[in-house]
Amino acid sequence: MIRFLTAGESHGRYLVVIIEGLPADILLQPEDINRDLARRQVGYGRGKRMEIEKDEVEIISGVRWGKTIGSPLNLIVANRDWVNWQEKMSIRKEDADTSLAVTRPRPGHADLAGALKYNQKDIRHILERSSARETTARVAVGAVCKAFLEKFGIHFFSHVKAIGGISADLSKLSYSEIASRAEKSDLRCADEEAVKKIKALIDEAKKKGDTLGGIAEIVVTGVTTGLGSHVHWDRKLDGRIAQSLMSVQAVKGVEIGLGFESAERFGSQVHDEIFYQTSSEKGKSRAGFSHKTNNAGGIEGGISNGEPLVVRCAMKPIATLMKPLKSVDILTKKPVEAAVERSDICRVPSLAVIGEAAVAFEVTRAFLEKFGGDSLGEIYSRYEDHLKTLENF
Amino acid sequence: MIRFLTAGESHGRYLVVIIEGLPADILLQPEDINRDLARRQVGYGRGKRMEIEKDEVEIISGVRWGKTIGSPLNLIVANRDWVNWQEKMSIRKEDADTSLAVTRPRPGHADLAGALKYNQKDIRHILERSSARETTARVAVGAVCKAFLEKFGIHFFSHVKAIGGISADLSKLSYSEIASRAEKSDLRCADEEAVKKIKALIDEAKKKGDTLGGIAEIVVTGVTTGLGSHVHWDRKLDGRIAQSLMSVQAVKGVEIGLGFESAERFGSQVHDEIFYQTSSEKGKSRAGFSHKTNNAGGIEGGISNGEPLVVRCAMKPIATLMKPLKSVDILTKKPVEAAVERSDICRVPSLAVIGEAAVAFEVTRAFLEKFGGDSLGEIYSRYEDHLKTLENF
Amino acid sequence: MIRFLTAGESHGRYLVVIIEGLPADILLQPEDINRDLARRQVGYGRGKRMEIEKDEVEIISGVRWGKTIGSPLNLIVANRDWVNWQEKMSIRKEDADTSLAVTRPRPGHADLAGALKYNQKDIRHILERSSARETTARVAVGAVCKAFLEKFGIHFFSHVKAIGGISADLSKLSYSEIASRAEKSDLRCADEEAVKKIKALIDEAKKKGDTLGGIAEIVVTGVTTGLGSHVHWDRKLDGRIAQSLMSVQAVKGVEIGLGFESAERFGSQVHDEIFYQTSSEKGKSRAGFSHKTNNAGGIEGGISNGEPLVVRCAMKPIATLMKPLKSVDILTKKPVEAAVERSDICRVPSLAVIGEAAVAFEVTRAFLEKFGGDSLGEIYSRYEDHLKTLENF
Amino acid sequence: MIRFLTAGESHGRYLVVIIEGLPADILLQPEDINRDLARRQVGYGRGKRMEIEKDEVEIISGVRWGKTIGSPLNLIVANRDWVNWQEKMSIRKEDADTSLAVTRPRPGHADLAGALKYNQKDIRHILERSSARETTARVAVGAVCKAFLEKFGIHFFSHVKAIGGISADLSKLSYSEIASRAEKSDLRCADEEAVKKIKALIDEAKKKGDTLGGIAEIVVTGVTTGLGSHVHWDRKLDGRIAQSLMSVQAVKGVEIGLGFESAERFGSQVHDEIFYQTSSEKGKSRAGFSHKTNNAGGIEGGISNGEPLVVRCAMKPIATLMKPLKSVDILTKKPVEAAVERSDICRVPSLAVIGEAAVAFEVTRAFLEKFGGDSLGEIYSRYEDHLKTLENF
Repeated sequence: MIRFLTAGESHGRYLVVIIEGLPADILLQPEDINRDLARRQVGYGRGKRMEIEKDEVEIISGVRWGKTIGSPLNLIVANRDWVNWQEKMSIRKEDADTSLAVTRPRPGHADLAGALKYNQKDIRHILERSSARETTARVAVGAVCKAFLEKFGIHFFSHVKAIGGISADLSKLSYSEIASRAEKSDLRCADEEAVKKIKALIDEAKKKGDTLGGIAEIVVTGVTTGLGSHVHWDRKLDGRIAQSLMSVQAVKGVEIGLGFESAERFGSQVHDEIFYQTSSEKGKSRAGFSHKTNNAGGIEGGISNGEPLVVRCAMKPIATLMKPLKSVDILTKKPVEAAVERSDICRVPSLAVIGEAAVAFEVTRAFLEKFGGDSLGEIYSRYEDHLKTLENF
Repeated sequence: MIRFLTAGESHGRYLVVIIEGLPADILLQPEDINRDLARRQVGYGRGKRMEIEKDEVEIISGVRWGKTIGSPLNLIVANRDWVNWQEKMSIRKEDADTSLAVTRPRPGHADLAGALKYNQKDIRHILERSSARETTARVAVGAVCKAFLEKFGIHFFSHVKAIGGISADLSKLSYSEIASRAEKSDLRCADEEAVKKIKALIDEAKKKGDTLGGIAEIVVTGVTTGLGSHVHWDRKLDGRIAQSLMSVQAVKGVEIGLGFESAERFGSQVHDEIFYQTSSEKGKSRAGFSHKTNNAGGIEGGISNGEPLVVRCAMKPIATLMKPLKSVDILTKKPVEAAVERSDICRVPSLAVIGEAAVAFEVTRAFLEKFGGDSLGEIYSRYEDHLKTLENF
Repeated sequence: MIRFLTAGESHGRYLVVIIEGLPADILLQPEDINRDLARRQVGYGRGKRMEIEKDEVEIISGVRWGKTIGSPLNLIVANRDWVNWQEKMSIRKEDADTSLAVTRPRPGHADLAGALKYNQKDIRHILERSSARETTARVAVGAVCKAFLEKFGIHFFSHVKAIGGISADLSKLSYSEIASRAEKSDLRCADEEAVKKIKALIDEAKKKGDTLGGIAEIVVTGVTTGLGSHVHWDRKLDGRIAQSLMSVQAVKGVEIGLGFESAERFGSQVHDEIFYQTSSEKGKSRAGFSHKTNNAGGIEGGISNGEPLVVRCAMKPIATLMKPLKSVDILTKKPVEAAVERSDICRVPSLAVIGEAAVAFEVTRAFLEKFGGDSLGEIYSRYEDHLKTLENF
Repeated sequence: MIRFLTAGESHGRYLVVIIEGLPADILLQPEDINRDLARRQVGYGRGKRMEIEKDEVEIISGVRWGKTIGSPLNLIVANRDWVNWQEKMSIRKEDADTSLAVTRPRPGHADLAGALKYNQKDIRHILERSSARETTARVAVGAVCKAFLEKFGIHFFSHVKAIGGISADLSKLSYSEIASRAEKSDLRCADEEAVKKIKALIDEAKKKGDTLGGIAEIVVTGVTTGLGSHVHWDRKLDGRIAQSLMSVQAVKGVEIGLGFESAERFGSQVHDEIFYQTSSEKGKSRAGFSHKTNNAGGIEGGISNGEPLVVRCAMKPIATLMKPLKSVDILTKKPVEAAVERSDICRVPSLAVIGEAAVAFEVTRAFLEKFGGDSLGEIYSRYEDHLKTLENF
């Protein structure tokens, strides 16, 4: 049982995370998390805030002398720009200044629906929390989960499949090539030709005061068979991953394996046939069942099937446009242009990293449900037994 | 707070549902549920089991004299074919007969991953529960939720957008036209031209022993602003709907509003601009904010924004092929053809109805979180206050 | 992760349970559950309904050929008196007959608070669900949990400590003596002298139209060290057990180990000193830490400590008095005598069995959190490893 | 839906809380929380750490300009003694120093069971989180809940009923007298005679290196009818309160209303008879049902009944004795004296304040389930409607 809560406003003092339910003895240092925080911040088409941010985490509790101790993990990421916001975002009532109220909701954002729901006349009370800044906290959670999962040979990578309709051609690349090329690209995209076109499109969007979305793919290798369950709808791994990804700011679509394309094919062209390899055939240490294709994206019946998890999510363009859309002032009810908060042109490379985190949490949750356990050694031993069971089934 | 559990094997005696957290005083009779159970069973391309099934629900508890009373609702759907299964699915140990074991896992199903996870040598122990038969229970839950939501002017319809790559052309149809045409179609599809082509494709698939998937769209009208929340990832309405839909058997993709297409456009072509109409202008009873487009599919920042919810899900082709795929016997480890359980060619029309149910539950959950309340009158009064707040904001 | 929902009105057609999250391969037959249902029904001082009831469970799903298969378990207990209630408790609106409305709330019951909360003018809509009849369902859940736990040497017994202020003297009895004597007693009480006095008191109460409560103790032996956790308040085993027991109808107090008495002593007279026994000293198979006293009742810091769990709960007298208390008619607002539903004089023996069930569920939940696992064999192997870890710590 | 997580080790840098699910517009400033943090620290018989602590909270997020904004609330309490612990509790692996390991578990603490569960050879990894220091975080949560509930006329007080077997005589005091006397007492006890005896007992315990426990009572006035529910065991308010209190460090018993004493009486002497008062009779603004006694402690059938909630909990003596008990070194397995961490003699006054917090959270949770709502105004209006419904029932 692992769970987490995040807190923190976009321009507040800290982003804060508490993760409860981690086993003891996981090696964890701030560097393990900072690496993903930095990966989240890379990206052609991102605005100046990225330079201010340079996020760094502090581990406040749950770790002692390099290892988790079983108690709740608390992570804090300071806002480096806090000095400029401490009055505007002060908790003290004497700092109130309604003249600063944001009253022109941005189409595509939580601004209007949130103001109406919470009955707030200052949209800042909504946008500070709905901002994608919050994904920093989720990336931190994901980094912790990945530090745990990698002990079991479970690894994550992500890359940008398309931006603004320009798709990467990855047809001739292996997973490891995609991973390494994406990691080096400032668009997290493995196809250099596509990168050129996309950058031109981003430049065009920037010039026009417009924004772009795209598609990111997350791949998880080394996932053992048996995470998730078919027995009840809310225990299915694919459903949980879908929630986790769809809840990322600006995501409007999620697909697994062939996804929407599978709806266009005959069954005989979709389902991954089953094979069996003895240890000698396979040339690896373990015998077992396998597939030669992975159209299912690693999940059948809500259960991981031993193949890599492959999921994609579609991000709509950023909702804050420098050339603002039509809106209505919530106080005067007059037509106005939407407010402009400092923002980016395109955040799909960042989405890829956030997506890794979103998936990593759900894989960890399913993993801990399958294996239970309170310390890494205990879980490791159970995991080995599980692999043997698969081999000798 | 509403929650439910379902139980029941595909060929077991009953499918059973308990729903906990419904307010009192909702008019509810078996007919309200049977209507959707029947809608789920319609569909060109479905096999003979549909005729056996003719599902009918019994309401066992939670309703007295026509109304809910606040206590848990128990629904039971009997298996009309139970007489032929009572030994094969008996709970008694003396009925055990391992010669009946299913040992040839079907690609695309939970069969293999489930057998490995639960360490079962008879795949029937997996497939009985992973079967899409379970969606009957979920449709029953959805029907109850819809009976509640319609008191607040919230209505559902669904239709088939595409099967096997053949898409319906709906460009000239209003929602009400789509709804009424779909309801009359045995493919739940509003485009007659497409219907003809799809039927031909289904016939072809049948001849080849193959199967088909497709895309269903669910639309919910009358959803008030303010369901779901931006404040924490797991409270976002879009994320929850994504889980609910992705957890439906064979669904591999979910999108909301423009979905994946929004990733291909500029922001200025995606975000729904905001307008304001006074009561006179609008010609309806309520003044308020509105949009002229609905690319967001009714959800911004994880919160319903007053526009219809529009969600789509992609279903892969049915995994049980009459011309079976390659597999491996789990006992002998020898190559075999996959098992063949009686099944259908295409279930996308059914998916549409199941999708309504999946969405209806999540809308109800968010609705009850927003409005609380223990009896319908109490909730109704709060709902009216909410509408006034929106109007006078 | 194990969870359950129950449904069913006191005079409804069925009581129904769904338990989700049980591992596969647990031997389970109706007899295993019926045994505890029968134990729940024994008791001097119970009314005639017990004879009508003679509860018997049907296992509808989740078990095949004698064993659980991992899918949700559905249990149904039919109301043998349904024929006399099928109109009064009908779900059909045409059977409504407001002349039958119960309008005189019983002090001490949910009647009035429930009617006000759910805004119901017929108290039957409340009392049917608040009735202790529902504990039948919980006892069924407990019996399933016990069938699982006994595979790991975890055993339950319970007995009546006191009724109406008359306490059993157990000072010279071992656990096994208490257990066997209680099991044979129609008051589930191990002290024959106390039994005589209590029966006289029950007879007196009966004559006066009055009722009695008392104290039941539940003991669980064989609980391994390490269930529950200190790391977060809602994972503490003692807190969970307290909720489970306090939520049983009529329970007003819960204590663990020395309980309230520990508040009267010095620390040096309370805390259980720690010893260590090698395998030879101990004369058993396992070496390890131990205690010579068990004032903690088997839980320290929210974690089981290897000693038997010992918990007690106090039941107030039954709220339905044959000589009714003062009340107010909810329609007329006039003073009246409270309604009289058929009821018992004293249900403390039954509480003991219900308490076993309440504790059994929470022990199972904590057990599955510690060990995870999807099939009994897998869990058994992990459990053995755990015992070795304790031994070799 | 309100929930919270806490993090932080006893000697760690911060204690941290995230509360999710609070409505917007609650006035909240650090002073509101610090008041209860200070009340928690008062108490004759507490050790020196209290002076070091002088806890002060920082509100990091969820509040702007004096009010909550609907987003998660983050509270941080710094450890004023951190400078002396920053190496011993460092998260950096290079600071590891196994020579500091705590290896002598204290009877009565989580020390041994926790070390075995989490497989830790340094008991500090357990005791830092199991320490009652964590209750600071829970008191902060409670203070926030109380700030919310007091808008609805719901008020809390608590007092010490007994310490070490010496009971306060409160028979002639009204609630308000008990409350005000307790508040002024450094033992939070309303009976001055008892206070004298208790202080002498504490002095005696101190001299002997021993410790004491006792009983605290929490009273909540102004709780409206209808919080909690009878319909499912885990929604009963009494069950939830029992968990919340039993999960407080060192609590071994919980009772509501008459509690264990109700088990000794006849039903006619226990159940609170029901009366009705019109507005004129009552001399207050609201007509309605009422009781003249409150043996139920404000909860019937798991639902608040309009009378004050009255709950008590029993605390065992503190487990850290200056004259240590027998233990075993976990490394050498040799008999030793238990470790001595700096600690107190008696913490029952503190328990009373913690108990208020534990109950306040559960009342808030049930309140928000009943009333829903996202902003204070919305909830206030619903609450008023509810009161009218009760009046006009």
